Amino acid sequence: MQQYFVAVKDLTVGERVQLSQVDSHHFLKVMRAQTKEQVTVVSEAGVSYLAELVAIIEDNAELQIIQLEKVELHSVELPVHVTIACGLSKNDKVETIVQKATECGMAEFMPLSLKRDVVKWIGKKADAKIERLSKIAKGAAEQSHRLIVPQIANLHNLEQLIHQSASFDIKLIAFEENAKSGHHSQLARVFKQLQGHERILVVFGSEGGLELKEVERLEEAGFISCSLGPRILRAETAPIYFLSALSFSLELDKV
Amino acid sequence: MQQYFVAVKDLTVGERVQLSQVDSHHFLKVMRAQTKEQVTVVSEAGVSYLAELVAIIEDNAELQIIQLEKVELHSVELPVHVTIACGLSKNDKVETIVQKATECGMAEFMPLSLKRDVVKWIGKKADAKIERLSKIAKGAAEQSHRLIVPQIANLHNLEQLIHQSASFDIKLIAFEENAKSGHHSQLARVFKQLQGHERILVVFGSEGGLELKEVERLEEAGFISCSLGPRILRAETAPIYFLSALSFSLELDKV
Repeated sequence: MQQYFVAVKDLTVGERVQLSQVDSHHFLKVMRAQTKEQVTVVSEAGVSYLAELVAIIEDNAELQIIQLEKVELHSVELPVHVTIACGLSKNDKVETIVQKATECGMAEFMPLSLKRDVVKWIGKKADAKIERLSKIAKGAAEQSHRLIVPQIANLHNLEQLIHQSASFDIKLIAFEENAKSGHHSQLARVFKQLQGHERILVVFGSEGGLELKEVERLEEAGFISCSLGPRILRAETAPIYFLSALSFSLELDKV
Repeated sequence: MQQYFVAVKDLTVGERVQLSQVDSHHFLKVMRAQTKEQVTVVSEAGVSYLAELVAIIEDNAELQIIQLEKVELHSVELPVHVTIACGLSKNDKVETIVQKATECGMAEFMPLSLKRDVVKWIGKKADAKIERLSKIAKGAAEQSHRLIVPQIANLHNLEQLIHQSASFDIKLIAFEENAKSGHHSQLARVFKQLQGHERILVVFGSEGGLELKEVERLEEAGFISCSLGPRILRAETAPIYFLSALSFSLELDKV
């Protein structure tokens, strides 16, 4: 069943709620929904409801809430809060990362301005990019039936990232030089110590990779550098590897 | 350092070898290599050599082997042989799967003709697709510094797949209904029993998913259906999740 998020905190059975313009277009035009078609609606509080299409008002889909769906947050969402911080890659790679990392359970995406970035986001371009990434995160969260939409943070530079990092329990760097050195056990050690509810921040380079100086500065600030295995991964593959390994470790292996 | 595969079984120090037309173009035009520029060359036997550019003959890069590089197969390649069998998705999704799964250690890709495929590969189209996927696998293997190039099998239907599956030790189905049912421990159980050197075959649906009848037919033939965690993954994300979890389990967690 199709799922959409609505910008409402609480919903009650019988209440009517409208989908956003974008979601209405998707539900009515792309999915060709007819009156009485059922759909899952998730509130801002991450609560899931069964609803049905009752009216179309100025091209917007109006739904009526039928019942609460018993989907527990912990049965869909990762038990830890993961922020993926990435250098800026060209083309649609950042969009691919946001889409796939959302499917894989990311809680927040933070675009990072690093030395070897192949593109720059300046002024209005940054705002437009962040708005676009927010839409992609919402769409991907709906498609993968998540209960929360990952937040897209503003563009940070390295020092702003380090300042922000004080609010995280675990701070990691995915550093490709570690892929070559053969020291692969760090990530498994970190994952084994997780109790649940930790806030994890992971830094990935852009296509150009991280500079050694940036890695050293992050390590000084308490970040631990980790290998993601022995093969060199592309910028857009590394975050997916990380989240898949984390999901396997916490959701498949520990149950 | 750039890496290229050459269609030669054995190489000796001092020997000269030419890159293929495609690789020559990449090395000379895209990377703008100059004479004496060093490069890694991998033979068909999966042996890695340091080489340098000594001549350009009719637009082809001629390299001279400088020395053997001590890269052990097991330090780069997954300890198990994984065949990823996928239904046919539209656009470039199959290409994305082949590229990313190559980075993540896949040994073979098998395109599958299933009931709910959104596209069909017929006659010459299938041949052209397979040739294109072979090129993508080679490029991705070079970029991720692998020692083998994943093979692209011919298009199989379900019964041909089942016939082929006799040569595999472990046969799995990634079935999204399992994502919803909350039974997530099967994959970890399978991974824990691996000794190394097993041949693993994993079936993924296309964007349209697998039909229940197809899953039942595969289960009759000894395939085990597995969950890839509680979130619904897109067709092109699921194989990457699988390979990342496998790599984490065998290469990061067991060392």
